[in-house]
Amino acid sequence: MKATGLVVEHNPFHNGHFYHAQQARNATGADVVIAVMSGNFLQRGEPALVDKWTRAKMSLQAGVDLVVELPYRYATASAKEFASASIFLLNALKADSFVFGSEHGDIGAFHQTVQLIRSNEHVYQQAIREAVHSGSSYPQALQHAFVTLQTLVPGQDVVDLSKPNNILGYHYTEACYTYSLPITPQTIQRIGAGYHDEITPTQSIASATGIRKALFETQELHTAASFMPETTLNELDSWFTSYRQFASWSQFWPTLRFAILSKTSQQLAAIAEVTEGIEHALLKHAASSSSYDEFMRKLKSKRYTWTRLQRMLTHIYTGFLETERTDKLPDAIRLIGMSNKGQLYLNSVKKDLELPLVSRLASSKSSFIAQDIRASNVYYLGFESEKLHQLVGHEYKKLPLMI
Amino acid sequence: MKATGLVVEHNPFHNGHFYHAQQARNATGADVVIAVMSGNFLQRGEPALVDKWTRAKMSLQAGVDLVVELPYRYATASAKEFASASIFLLNALKADSFVFGSEHGDIGAFHQTVQLIRSNEHVYQQAIREAVHSGSSYPQALQHAFVTLQTLVPGQDVVDLSKPNNILGYHYTEACYTYSLPITPQTIQRIGAGYHDEITPTQSIASATGIRKALFETQELHTAASFMPETTLNELDSWFTSYRQFASWSQFWPTLRFAILSKTSQQLAAIAEVTEGIEHALLKHAASSSSYDEFMRKLKSKRYTWTRLQRMLTHIYTGFLETERTDKLPDAIRLIGMSNKGQLYLNSVKKDLELPLVSRLASSKSSFIAQDIRASNVYYLGFESEKLHQLVGHEYKKLPLMI
Repeated sequence: MKATGLVVEHNPFHNGHFYHAQQARNATGADVVIAVMSGNFLQRGEPALVDKWTRAKMSLQAGVDLVVELPYRYATASAKEFASASIFLLNALKADSFVFGSEHGDIGAFHQTVQLIRSNEHVYQQAIREAVHSGSSYPQALQHAFVTLQTLVPGQDVVDLSKPNNILGYHYTEACYTYSLPITPQTIQRIGAGYHDEITPTQSIASATGIRKALFETQELHTAASFMPETTLNELDSWFTSYRQFASWSQFWPTLRFAILSKTSQQLAAIAEVTEGIEHALLKHAASSSSYDEFMRKLKSKRYTWTRLQRMLTHIYTGFLETERTDKLPDAIRLIGMSNKGQLYLNSVKKDLELPLVSRLASSKSSFIAQDIRASNVYYLGFESEKLHQLVGHEYKKLPLMI
Repeated sequence: MKATGLVVEHNPFHNGHFYHAQQARNATGADVVIAVMSGNFLQRGEPALVDKWTRAKMSLQAGVDLVVELPYRYATASAKEFASASIFLLNALKADSFVFGSEHGDIGAFHQTVQLIRSNEHVYQQAIREAVHSGSSYPQALQHAFVTLQTLVPGQDVVDLSKPNNILGYHYTEACYTYSLPITPQTIQRIGAGYHDEITPTQSIASATGIRKALFETQELHTAASFMPETTLNELDSWFTSYRQFASWSQFWPTLRFAILSKTSQQLAAIAEVTEGIEHALLKHAASSSSYDEFMRKLKSKRYTWTRLQRMLTHIYTGFLETERTDKLPDAIRLIGMSNKGQLYLNSVKKDLELPLVSRLASSKSSFIAQDIRASNVYYLGFESEKLHQLVGHEYKKLPLMI
């Protein structure tokens, strides 16, 4: 059986994701689509709307065959680390290829871009350092350095790295080179909405950001109904009927505020990404802000991007220490759910998997377990719902979904 | 002006406290009654029913003239440390005497007991170590060691140190010797209810424990009404009307559970009083318990007293580290509230005070501030009430009450 892989957050699963999975299957001729999915906390440093089990169910109901979890350590890391670990896992699962959406749409340009940077690594790093030194944010510095490279080697078809999906695609492709992985990168052009767009009623594809925004602003599922498969809509509806809340930092603010204010400045400084004395600003503004919006308005400065700050807060919330941010790549494949076809595929590749397959955390020896369990438990405790508090502790014993 | 001191928690202020303050005034002929009061967390390792400002108001309305705060570090410490710091503060405030309630009731016996132990310190400590070594809890070991001493020097009028108020009285008296304080200890016999009793309708005095129990069991203020001054009743009523909750670990369980489960075992082990590997049991039982009662049932063992465990949990909740548990005595007098007479007294002794008087934390240099602010902030975040969350941060700026 032939498998292709996707790197996803599915927050929530929408028509664009459906299109992506379909196209991946068509473009690669794969029998099976595997998704590497982030858990309850995401790359932009936010809690997921609904938990990973519900999101995995949405994916499986809409045609994904296998969902495995990207450990917290990588799901909440920089684009480069996030991408490397994801592709590493897909390769370990014996996927022949992976397919990512990009603004550019041509895989040749990604290969050329990776080769250009790899063969001019020294010039590139030097240009980044100079840009950071003269006050650019890190993403700006990357962009600047890349433009510098392009002028050195003009006329090549390279990727515009100022676009968010191109950047991720670049890092996915780069991972194949860095770790000499046999898996083949492929890309499809993104259609429909850009990352930051609002939803518009004449389309059937909107970004997950737009959908979440509509959900939080209107508190009504039907405003975003036309952008999601019915299966997603049913899952979201049943979640909201049971628990009356979707997760966001605004909803989690009392608990996030407790996580900050119950620590000494030294304890805060030991948390991953809390650096340069920002712990003092965190304590001061958390004490004086009655909402997450107010807190972020006070905290935001030119020095830090919004994402960087949110990742810092995610780590404070989950108690993730700087010392836990190891370079070690995933050492196990955590299975979250599968279709019948996914199960057949797993049986067929079982002997060849390059990492142990984990169906229950209780029986795993992975070094990322303690972090993933912490992230799961504190996620549920951010909600007001007693029923969600009862899910604390279930991560350890839970068996994969079978859809 | 002549002042006498009381060491109190006033959780809540009841008829027994009223009687104690009256008797203290009568027995010493003092013009002014000063209370050293614990803040939002108490010596048995529990959050106070209502915050320190509300409890101070109750005290001042019922005849106490001055309320100063015992820093968190001492309010949640062992009986010996709690008592030392309290008497040290009363002496720094130039009180001529202090008056404590005891089961024994005769101050001579307290002096004799302190002298007996001080002059046989070596034998005493040795007997404690032996008892602990052979499996006794620390309170049991103290009692055993003391009985050993008594048999060495028979015929003296000594205090029964197995009684909770006698033990505190012993440590109050001991502090005068240890720090050579000129303040004079006095005791009055406790009347009415013992510490653990239930309330009974034929009495007008019940223990604070009994009153709290009645409040939580019946969720009705009037069941305990006859045991409290009307001023206390009005304060409790107004608190409950506004916030719909009194504090207890049961009420704070979701937040306490978050405080435990958001930490690595190493982070837990760095918290004050978390020792001997109990961090693993804390993580395990917090994950699997849906209520505080269930959690404590699982956690309780012969090895730890209930109070010891609760103090550990208090420190986890407030993020109080083992490294913060210094031997340093209070270095400032934190004023919480005063009557007119209390203010006159402070003016009269201002020049002679042995520690700086602090009316606003923002203008203090005390080394206990950061801890007291943390304890105040996280206390309010344990409640569900948004209105109480708005009090987060107020500790830093708040001015003393004037009643």
